[in-house]
Amino acid sequence: MRIEESIKIYGAKIDELLKELIPPHRNDYLSAPIWHHMRTGGKRVRPALCLITCEALGGNPHEAIHFALAIEAMHNMFLIHDDIEDGDTVRRDQPTVWVQYGIANAINAGDYLLACAYKTTLASPISLEKKLALLQVLTSTYEKTVEGQALDINARAAEDFSVEKYMKMVELKTGYYLACGMVGGAIVSGVSEQVVDKIWTLGKTMGPAFQIRDDLIDLTHGKGRGGVIGSDVKEGKASFLYSYALQIASADDKKQLRIIMLKPRDETTDNDIQKVLDIYRKYGAIQHAQDYAENLVRQAYKTIDEIPTGNKTIFKEIASFMAQRMS
Amino acid sequence: MRIEESIKIYGAKIDELLKELIPPHRNDYLSAPIWHHMRTGGKRVRPALCLITCEALGGNPHEAIHFALAIEAMHNMFLIHDDIEDGDTVRRDQPTVWVQYGIANAINAGDYLLACAYKTTLASPISLEKKLALLQVLTSTYEKTVEGQALDINARAAEDFSVEKYMKMVELKTGYYLACGMVGGAIVSGVSEQVVDKIWTLGKTMGPAFQIRDDLIDLTHGKGRGGVIGSDVKEGKASFLYSYALQIASADDKKQLRIIMLKPRDETTDNDIQKVLDIYRKYGAIQHAQDYAENLVRQAYKTIDEIPTGNKTIFKEIASFMAQRMS
Repeated sequence: MRIEESIKIYGAKIDELLKELIPPHRNDYLSAPIWHHMRTGGKRVRPALCLITCEALGGNPHEAIHFALAIEAMHNMFLIHDDIEDGDTVRRDQPTVWVQYGIANAINAGDYLLACAYKTTLASPISLEKKLALLQVLTSTYEKTVEGQALDINARAAEDFSVEKYMKMVELKTGYYLACGMVGGAIVSGVSEQVVDKIWTLGKTMGPAFQIRDDLIDLTHGKGRGGVIGSDVKEGKASFLYSYALQIASADDKKQLRIIMLKPRDETTDNDIQKVLDIYRKYGAIQHAQDYAENLVRQAYKTIDEIPTGNKTIFKEIASFMAQRMS
Repeated sequence: MRIEESIKIYGAKIDELLKELIPPHRNDYLSAPIWHHMRTGGKRVRPALCLITCEALGGNPHEAIHFALAIEAMHNMFLIHDDIEDGDTVRRDQPTVWVQYGIANAINAGDYLLACAYKTTLASPISLEKKLALLQVLTSTYEKTVEGQALDINARAAEDFSVEKYMKMVELKTGYYLACGMVGGAIVSGVSEQVVDKIWTLGKTMGPAFQIRDDLIDLTHGKGRGGVIGSDVKEGKASFLYSYALQIASADDKKQLRIIMLKPRDETTDNDIQKVLDIYRKYGAIQHAQDYAENLVRQAYKTIDEIPTGNKTIFKEIASFMAQRMS
């Protein structure tokens, strides 16, 4: 498939440039934790989609490559900080940065990646106007993602968590983030503000759609190795299903749900996970989540139809590529 | 004194605008930890110096106020992250953010402050060229400070810590940071690049000078409440004196120093602190630190003389204001 091929080619280029931006083996206590993390994988899909969008809209992808790198740096900053915040000890079979290098170095390495994101964007070979527009995109995305993370950190303890609050959280935490690469590529290509606005809207429906599907996968196929089901429950992660159940379940079921969600990870038993699953099934939460996500995907395709550009194909290809990856 | 009066007036204005940038009592899990921290004090000296510099060089301080806010936001981001990284539990008689709200919320609140720093700089009512120059200043300062923090976090464990390494660390960690407000104010006022370069140089001598004096205060007057001496030793902080002693002390004294520095805070006894002080005195480290700092201050005044502008008075006033505050 064309788009997968492009991602592979652009992804390799991004990998090469990341090594220029942050030289591995530099003796500064930053390069080691950052590359320990970077080597845990990642196909550099986000930056690749930035370059693909730029090219498809008639722009020069070489002019967008600094911003593409910035997105990848910011993405990894969030992963490193999130792993500390969520207490995750393993990422793709490797100890997370804070486990390997300590919390102090992990926070600081994340901070450094964000500095790199701004530094590379500032070095873009484009007009001042476009550069400022990209810095605005980077800053809004960063700000909104942090706002969403604040809601996420505190969601499981919030008694009034609801579908509305879940949607606000994931729109902030995943929507801007998903769209920002495409938006940046579009800005560099020189399209109108109307096109840019529609891409943001696209992110705000596609992001939550994929997040809900991700929540579902945890209960149907399992996320981790060996297809273990319910790791989100163990982690106390505020999923779509949890928000929906909290809204409609009986007082007793609600109470039981909250008790299990608030348990420390190590104390959550398989029996607990089964109980949560039973409650979700009882109220049809799984079916409702599937319908809700499908509706969002339909909305996303409608938004693509409304993008005022001749070349909508690329957005359809990206959407379907993402849908495949997420299912 | 004129400059102290200006800092008071501008500081109050900054406080007012900070409340617009980050409204207190907003129900978003960010406003609460941030204002818990902000209320522990701070005279907003850094942003005030930005505005004072801008005005003194003939610029309009209203055009610099967004950047002044940005510096204050970034400053507090560093304090919140540093408190986690250093394991500090109390700041000005209040529990630190991570103690009060947990590590996850503290990391994220710091991240949010940085987003605010970029957001407000992007909103500055100035030309595109000046705005990009300020974003460059913000990014370099942020990057260098993080690089310095990386050296600091790992210094006490490094066997080859030396005066040269100490100077590199504090130049990065304090030099850019000290100068960036003045640099930003100068850029908004429209001075030449030569003036801006000299202010950076000024920061790179004044920053380390004040840091060395700060290191000395810990051993002569004490930093915390009640004038307790040696809290840096307890904390295992890599001070100028430590770097100098490691360089010239006998193998035995060096070994003893390192053992005490690497002890957890709670296990460092008053006797340990006395031992460290004795070693510092034995090798004349305190006198050497005083001489070294004085020499840096002399260099700083020389740099001020070289600033190619008619109004050097302001820089002399700022330097002497800082010197007074630090002694």
